[in-house]
Amino acid sequence: MTKKELLYEGKAKKVYATDKEDEVIVYYKDDATAFNGVKKGQIEDKGELNNSITSMLFELVEKHGVKTHFIEKLNDREQLCKKVDIVPLEVIVRNVAAGSMAKRLGVEEGSPLKTTVFEICYKNDDYDDPLINDTHAVALGFSTFEELKTIYAMTDKVNEILKEFFLKQNIKLIDFKLEFGKTADGEILLADEISPDTCRLWDATTNEKLDKDRFRRDMGNVKEAYVEILNRIAGK
Amino acid sequence: MTKKELLYEGKAKKVYATDKEDEVIVYYKDDATAFNGVKKGQIEDKGELNNSITSMLFELVEKHGVKTHFIEKLNDREQLCKKVDIVPLEVIVRNVAAGSMAKRLGVEEGSPLKTTVFEICYKNDDYDDPLINDTHAVALGFSTFEELKTIYAMTDKVNEILKEFFLKQNIKLIDFKLEFGKTADGEILLADEISPDTCRLWDATTNEKLDKDRFRRDMGNVKEAYVEILNRIAGK
Repeated sequence: MTKKELLYEGKAKKVYATDKEDEVIVYYKDDATAFNGVKKGQIEDKGELNNSITSMLFELVEKHGVKTHFIEKLNDREQLCKKVDIVPLEVIVRNVAAGSMAKRLGVEEGSPLKTTVFEICYKNDDYDDPLINDTHAVALGFSTFEELKTIYAMTDKVNEILKEFFLKQNIKLIDFKLEFGKTADGEILLADEISPDTCRLWDATTNEKLDKDRFRRDMGNVKEAYVEILNRIAGK
Repeated sequence: MTKKELLYEGKAKKVYATDKEDEVIVYYKDDATAFNGVKKGQIEDKGELNNSITSMLFELVEKHGVKTHFIEKLNDREQLCKKVDIVPLEVIVRNVAAGSMAKRLGVEEGSPLKTTVFEICYKNDDYDDPLINDTHAVALGFSTFEELKTIYAMTDKVNEILKEFFLKQNIKLIDFKLEFGKTADGEILLADEISPDTCRLWDATTNEKLDKDRFRRDMGNVKEAYVEILNRIAGK
């Protein structure tokens, strides 16, 4: 597989063309951002850690029948993935109130919820990735109701798989963000990554945060938390 | 009907107890606020105008089978209504992009939408009535999924009735906000008001604004716009 031109550079990853029209190489960077890019930094070895964690978790959800863009891990920092057009939505699942939801609605972080919360945000940095609902997404042409139904069903399944898997490693899955892409023939695949950058993961015994909140909130031991997650899910 | 103690004072109305446990008197004030109370003022005769407009529109939707809290207009500024506990949600319908939606999502005001947008906001001034979705409303105990289904069905019906009715008066119903209440026995009724305070109404020929945006945006002729709406819907 030959790595060709850079197609896209995001906050945490780069995407390169390959010699196959429908496959790309995703490169994981150490760059970390928070609050829509207002806070910037690096987390040592994050690219390697998140590439490993995402590869394992995408293999896990694939094994349970969720279709993803992931093909294989190529090396420490790179994955081979199917080429997709990213649906311009961030899909957020919240099993426990935390982060922006807790702040926006005046709910204490860690509060239980009477039902699982699913949010969609319009991926647009100029407007701070605003929370929207299904009718906004359809009204503005970001997706169809049919596509949203597929996306929610896949998201719900990913949540069930990950909650159970993490709990076996004594980790509570508080919330997480997914992104989806469409292949050239219109199939919707889980894309992007699943890592401590995109999940809130708390030790189930101590509630210690093992995710990017350690970077956002200057809590220290950021890399160590990512290493801990990798070790637990790798069964080390 | 005897007016008894003040039960509640909102930004535009006061609610008084009556000698019947399950009925209240709603008094319409001239006070006008915008941007969650940041801008304050008065619109001359607004109380009388909105009492008349709301009374006519509530009778209209009742005639078409939508259950409301409205019993009868008592005098220039007062209505007799069924007593309800207000569901802490603002339900917004958008037929055309305008106002906060246009601003939040970077859409030009007046843009057509591929589907009708329904929004719910958590009624809480401390948090600026934040936009939420159905799962938030249920997760935080504001309503049940079943109640939301009823509320959306009633809202959709009100939209169809009002769109058609206003268009006959050469008015485009751009968007509007509804509130719902629950009676002691759990029935959901349309409550609050339907007026130029809670609707965006544009002349269908000229697109001239005939609603509270004239106050919000200091456009002048505010009272005149409300009078124009009353005259058109009263067939004067």
